[in-house]
Amino acid sequence: MKFTFVTLFSNLIEGYFQDSILSRAIEKQLFTVDFVNPRDFSQNRHNKVDDTAFGGGAGMLMTPQPLYDTLHSIKQEDEDAYIVFVTPVAKSFVQNDAKRLADKKHIVFVSGRYEGIDERVVEEYADEVLSIGDYILTGGELPSLVMCDAIVRNIDGVLGNSESLEVESFESELLEAPSFTKPQIYKEKNVPSEFLKGNHSKIRTLKFALSECKTSFFRPGRHLKHNTRKSYEK
Amino acid sequence: MKFTFVTLFSNLIEGYFQDSILSRAIEKQLFTVDFVNPRDFSQNRHNKVDDTAFGGGAGMLMTPQPLYDTLHSIKQEDEDAYIVFVTPVAKSFVQNDAKRLADKKHIVFVSGRYEGIDERVVEEYADEVLSIGDYILTGGELPSLVMCDAIVRNIDGVLGNSESLEVESFESELLEAPSFTKPQIYKEKNVPSEFLKGNHSKIRTLKFALSECKTSFFRPGRHLKHNTRKSYEK
Repeated sequence: MKFTFVTLFSNLIEGYFQDSILSRAIEKQLFTVDFVNPRDFSQNRHNKVDDTAFGGGAGMLMTPQPLYDTLHSIKQEDEDAYIVFVTPVAKSFVQNDAKRLADKKHIVFVSGRYEGIDERVVEEYADEVLSIGDYILTGGELPSLVMCDAIVRNIDGVLGNSESLEVESFESELLEAPSFTKPQIYKEKNVPSEFLKGNHSKIRTLKFALSECKTSFFRPGRHLKHNTRKSYEK
Repeated sequence: MKFTFVTLFSNLIEGYFQDSILSRAIEKQLFTVDFVNPRDFSQNRHNKVDDTAFGGGAGMLMTPQPLYDTLHSIKQEDEDAYIVFVTPVAKSFVQNDAKRLADKKHIVFVSGRYEGIDERVVEEYADEVLSIGDYILTGGELPSLVMCDAIVRNIDGVLGNSESLEVESFESELLEAPSFTKPQIYKEKNVPSEFLKGNHSKIRTLKFALSECKTSFFRPGRHLKHNTRKSYEK
């Protein structure tokens, strides 16, 4: 699988692939990353990539030409490249999208900077437009990394022994139950006694109850499928 | 304002502060960043920071001792340090949180790795527990950066002329209207004609209609305050 990051500031995010799980997965050739700067495609003699917005408003927008030419060149090299624009004005990216997008061969994340991107570029090139949450950031670089990270976890072989895809938050629509590790008593705080006994059916029931409790507290109104309890207790 | 990132992998995220808006804001001393590695506090002779979970389950958890001692040391230096744990099992961070947290003097983001953090550490030290969205990542580092980025935008002086806090998505509970910049016609695509005329009242009305349209499409069921239209048209 390949990820291309279209960004004016690849230096901000390249470091994220230099260590830990993702760097090991890159070494194992489970995925590759590439960075393309639309400034390199600017036909402006000062390599300008932004201009003022029509209709007024503070701030600058990214102009169509550099992005058009960047994306045109990417599509010419790989017509199956799947282009995702990253903006708060979009459908919210959730865990199911991470799983779904892990089946793509090549995802291109286009990061806006300044006040955003001229809408005509989005109309022309977007296969999908996604938001990672309802907050404003200084650019699309972090959301692109966030989605890439969430997606690659779902590629076979990426997670090592220390991490796991098993029963995690959202996989069952419930937030995960709290977890405890050694020592059994730390600073006079005990691990809940059920966790220490070997009865796995009781542990699952307790974890499910804790999950339900955390979910209804932090995501009030979340609709749970009728079979959630069943699948959890399998 | 100060941000401390408690993480096993500061090298993954340090680069994000080396360029663009955030590096300029650091140069102007509008905020500072600091990285602390809990491994440096481990009393295990191999500097171990993880162990298996009680009650079974794949994967490793971060043990209490290194994090306890890290956070104890931070609190001893600055008793007002505001400690935020980053986990998907938490309240969702939204734009209002970014504004609210911009008033803190010192925020400490604690990033989990592996399967997460022993719950006793969270109970002992969390002033707040936050999630950036309903998806699973390989660690808390990216969500910490995301929140930091969203928060610092709200510090006076951080945004330059190219960016702006004015009428943005979520500031008015509506997603932002599309924007257009020069040229007026690009690849036969025109900017909507209202945007080109000087009638700012008409432009605002059109932008509001486009915002409503995008919001109801991408965030169906979002409750809008009765005064939203009024404040938008001011």
